[in-house]
Amino acid sequence: MQRYFINTSAIKQNQVIISGQDYHHIKNVMRMKPGDRVLVCTEKENSYLVEITGFSDNKVILTIVEERNEQVELPLEITIAQGVIRREKTEEVIRRISELGANFYLPVMMERSLVKIKEQDQKKTNRYQMIAKEASEQSQRTRIMKIEEPVSFDKLLASFENYDLCLVAYEKLSQAKDYNLEKNLRSFTGKSIIVIIGPEGGFSPQEIKLLQNTKAKFVGLGPRILRTETAPLYVMSVISYQFEEGETDEN
Amino acid sequence: MQRYFINTSAIKQNQVIISGQDYHHIKNVMRMKPGDRVLVCTEKENSYLVEITGFSDNKVILTIVEERNEQVELPLEITIAQGVIRREKTEEVIRRISELGANFYLPVMMERSLVKIKEQDQKKTNRYQMIAKEASEQSQRTRIMKIEEPVSFDKLLASFENYDLCLVAYEKLSQAKDYNLEKNLRSFTGKSIIVIIGPEGGFSPQEIKLLQNTKAKFVGLGPRILRTETAPLYVMSVISYQFEEGETDEN
Repeated sequence: MQRYFINTSAIKQNQVIISGQDYHHIKNVMRMKPGDRVLVCTEKENSYLVEITGFSDNKVILTIVEERNEQVELPLEITIAQGVIRREKTEEVIRRISELGANFYLPVMMERSLVKIKEQDQKKTNRYQMIAKEASEQSQRTRIMKIEEPVSFDKLLASFENYDLCLVAYEKLSQAKDYNLEKNLRSFTGKSIIVIIGPEGGFSPQEIKLLQNTKAKFVGLGPRILRTETAPLYVMSVISYQFEEGETDEN
Repeated sequence: MQRYFINTSAIKQNQVIISGQDYHHIKNVMRMKPGDRVLVCTEKENSYLVEITGFSDNKVILTIVEERNEQVELPLEITIAQGVIRREKTEEVIRRISELGANFYLPVMMERSLVKIKEQDQKKTNRYQMIAKEASEQSQRTRIMKIEEPVSFDKLLASFENYDLCLVAYEKLSQAKDYNLEKNLRSFTGKSIIVIIGPEGGFSPQEIKLLQNTKAKFVGLGPRILRTETAPLYVMSVISYQFEEGETDEN
C-alpha cells in the first residue's frame, strides 16, 4: 500500500490534510479517487490507515480508518558516516541504506575525497533528503533517514562521545586491533552506533592515526575489498541480521 | 596491487604471457613498465605475484616472483538466482555481489519480469561476465563469479537437487513457513546454497505455489521491504558475516 510521511500537525481529530508534492503524487501520479486508501506516518513514528474523502484547493482530505502498530524500525540508532564521494554514488548509498533501516547519513570531508564540497549546500542536502524520503516510503518504514550537513574530520571525532559504539570499516586488518565485526555487534547492548567509512581512496594515514586515538574500534567487512559505496550496505545488512533476525527465533 | 585473471595455459614454467584486453590495460591504461609487479589468478584459484619482463607483439611477458596463498573466497558456493530485471539494475547487482563473494548469478524468467529476454543472448551474457571479472579484480578475489544463461522457472526448480540449501527471499512472511534466515544459515553445514529472489513485481502466486512444493525454505530479509536489487546484497553480506566473520573469533 502507498505510504506518505506527514507532520502530526496535518492531523485534526480523525482527519488528515495532505498538500504539496504528496497531493500531486496522490492525485496525478497514482490517480487515486475518494474511497481509496493509503498509509500515513508521522514524525513521531505513528502510522495510520486513511481513506480519501475528497479533494479541494490543492489538498487531499482523508479520514483515519485505524491506527497501525508497525514494528519495522531497527531497535538501534545507526549513523553511517562516510567520506564525501561523488553525487551519483552518494545517491545510491542513501537509497540503499534508507531501505536497510539506517537513521542518519553523515558526509565527512576527508583528505582523499575526490569531490570537494561546500560545508553548506542546502540544495544538495534537500535533494538527498528527498531520495531518503522516497526510499523510506517504498521500503514501508515508519521513519525517514536524516541527511546531515557535511562535517569536517575534527567535528566527526568530536561527535564520538554521542555514540555508544564507534566502528571504523578498515580493510588493512593487519594494522588494526580488535577488528572482528561480529564480536563487536554480538556483545553490544547500547542504543547508538556510528560506522565510519572512507571515501574511494580510503582513509589517509593521518586520519587512521587520529581515529586510533579515539574510542573507535576498527573492524573488517569480510576478506574481500569492498568499494566505498558497497561497505555501508554490508554494514546495514549485518546489523539487521544481528539485531532483527535473532528476535524472531522463537516464532 | 593490480590483479588479472588468466588461464593456467598462459603459464609456461615461470613465465606468464598476457594478451588481449588485459595487455591493453597493463600497457596503455596502467602504463606499466618492465620491473612493475601485478598479481595474476588462474581459474584453479592459484595466484602469483609476477613482474613485467617486457612487451612484444601485443603481449606482456611476466616472470613469476612467488606463489601467493590467499584466502579471500567464501567457504561455500553461493548462487544468486533472480527474476530477470532491467539491464542497468542487473549490472549493479552483478557488480556488487561479485565484490561480496558470490559464485554464480542465474537470471530466471519469471511471470512478473518487466523485461522479456531471449534465452540465448550471448552478447549480453558476455557483457555481464566482463563486469563480474572487473569487480572480482577490484575486490581482490581469486575467482570470478560466473554469469549463467537465463533459464525458465521450471528449469530453476529442476536444478534444486544440485544444492544443499535452497532459500526463497519472500517478504510476505505471514504466508510463509520456517522463515528465519539466521536459523537456516546458522545450522547449515553443507557446501552449496542457492538464493531465489523475485523481479521488481515479486513472485506471482503461481510461482510461490510451485516453490512451496519443493525443498526450498522461505526466509525474510528483515522487516522492511527491500527492492529486488538490494535483496542480493543483503543476502551476500549476511552470508559473509555468518561464515567468515565468525572464523576470526579466536584471533
